[in-house]
Amino acid sequence: MNSDRTAVTVIGLGSMGSALAAALLEAGHPITVWNRSAGKARSLVDRGARLAATPEEAIAASRLTIACVWDYEVLHTVLDPIADCLAGKVLVNLTSGSPEQAHEAVEWARSHGADYLDGAIMTTPPGVGSREMMFLYSGSHAVFEAYRPALAALGDPLYLGTAPGLASLYDAALLGLMWSTMTGWLHGTALVGAEKTEATAFTPIAIRWLTAVAGFLTTYAPQVDAGRYPGDDATVDVQIAAIGHLIHAAERRGIDNALPELLKSAMERAKAAGHGSDSYASVIEVLKNPADHR
Amino acid sequence: MNSDRTAVTVIGLGSMGSALAAALLEAGHPITVWNRSAGKARSLVDRGARLAATPEEAIAASRLTIACVWDYEVLHTVLDPIADCLAGKVLVNLTSGSPEQAHEAVEWARSHGADYLDGAIMTTPPGVGSREMMFLYSGSHAVFEAYRPALAALGDPLYLGTAPGLASLYDAALLGLMWSTMTGWLHGTALVGAEKTEATAFTPIAIRWLTAVAGFLTTYAPQVDAGRYPGDDATVDVQIAAIGHLIHAAERRGIDNALPELLKSAMERAKAAGHGSDSYASVIEVLKNPADHR
Repeated sequence: MNSDRTAVTVIGLGSMGSALAAALLEAGHPITVWNRSAGKARSLVDRGARLAATPEEAIAASRLTIACVWDYEVLHTVLDPIADCLAGKVLVNLTSGSPEQAHEAVEWARSHGADYLDGAIMTTPPGVGSREMMFLYSGSHAVFEAYRPALAALGDPLYLGTAPGLASLYDAALLGLMWSTMTGWLHGTALVGAEKTEATAFTPIAIRWLTAVAGFLTTYAPQVDAGRYPGDDATVDVQIAAIGHLIHAAERRGIDNALPELLKSAMERAKAAGHGSDSYASVIEVLKNPADHR
Repeated sequence: MNSDRTAVTVIGLGSMGSALAAALLEAGHPITVWNRSAGKARSLVDRGARLAATPEEAIAASRLTIACVWDYEVLHTVLDPIADCLAGKVLVNLTSGSPEQAHEAVEWARSHGADYLDGAIMTTPPGVGSREMMFLYSGSHAVFEAYRPALAALGDPLYLGTAPGLASLYDAALLGLMWSTMTGWLHGTALVGAEKTEATAFTPIAIRWLTAVAGFLTTYAPQVDAGRYPGDDATVDVQIAAIGHLIHAAERRGIDNALPELLKSAMERAKAAGHGSDSYASVIEVLKNPADHR
């Protein structure tokens, strides 16, 4: 045990909470853990974690508590009965939830005399502990700065701002990007798979292509901020023509086309709103104001 | 003019065709160009290109012709009347189209005594000439090898296989991935934008996140090939719970939710098919066999 490392309590030992506790142990932090079913603590205890018998005992053991449970309902079920123990403590909440739940949680923590930082984990459990992986935080900047070394044991900590809901909002936005990307990749994988191309052959090319796509996003971001979308590289009209090839090719191969049909429809609404000669970034106008474009 | 460089004819001087011709000129290839409206050739001629008066003259000027016109209809309008001139020539067709059109084109070229290679350009015109950018080719491997140095002047040439439709099929699959990714990014950008976060602040984090997402694709590709999807990192059930947060947060901010609703529905169909405890890669089963999962 390394005495210059902050003591940390971890509440919740699902696969993610266990990974957090393991990364803190690995970095030399004295840690105390608690979980509804104590069995999940065994391998952490073997590696030096202290198992608290009750949530009160867990909270009392460290100034800093990191909570990572299934949802906010579970969080309140565990902490509400012992909320008085939170006075003078610091709660970093990595439980997934909505921005509104984070806003409520900061008020709830404040009413019990606790400092509060909200966070979102942008990796799966196997990625915890890697400096490559982003952990997003919002809320108290003082808490973020004071506990940055402990937070850095989990991944790369990024501070987004004082509004406590920002980490959850980014989390939702980034997961949406992930599901869209993964589903687009699965659709493409199914398409080339229909012609006997293996996913493991297609995927390295798809990943390299994502680097080019990232370049398009970098080009389009200032267009979104300016609300002007010059179609210098490729226009919505050109994309509408091109997506026809995808839909046709997928249909012939018996693949579900709901996703490309939806994307085509968004492009067509952008065109109908006068963005045919603009870049693809103009599609954000129909997403932001759906009622105007139905 | 550099005499050890292959002479190349470029047919079609839209923004992409012009970029191709400019990259070949830049690399020192003697080039001949033709376009329906000759005005578009001016700046290329200023830089040393020869302007052919007719398509026949253009084809006759070089053994290798690269065609990049609006679509296959335009291609046939230009080349069908002079198809007899193609005997003994090599046509590299970078016109966008379907795999089926590429299959027909190789037969058509063969019937006129020409070698044929089909290609797809995985960048926008400003990216042409960069070694970072992928140009995908399929069809005659002999043509690909013989003209690789000229093709390398355009970007990084990748050969996919002898089936001529492969380049178009990959093109469609990769563009589908691009539209999905760009639309997911725009949705996320609209979501954080509703809380005054600028696109230029969100986008670098989104791009960094795409690197993590690429890691998930690498994990999932062998699962797709094996048809088994162990949910070690995150299950479909977990993703269904999480996408609820996105839909809720976007709905409260007046953002169009058609895309996340569609993604959720795909996940729910995967769950209904028994993949709740499997990884997200299992969603490909409902895309491949839509009739089984409606």
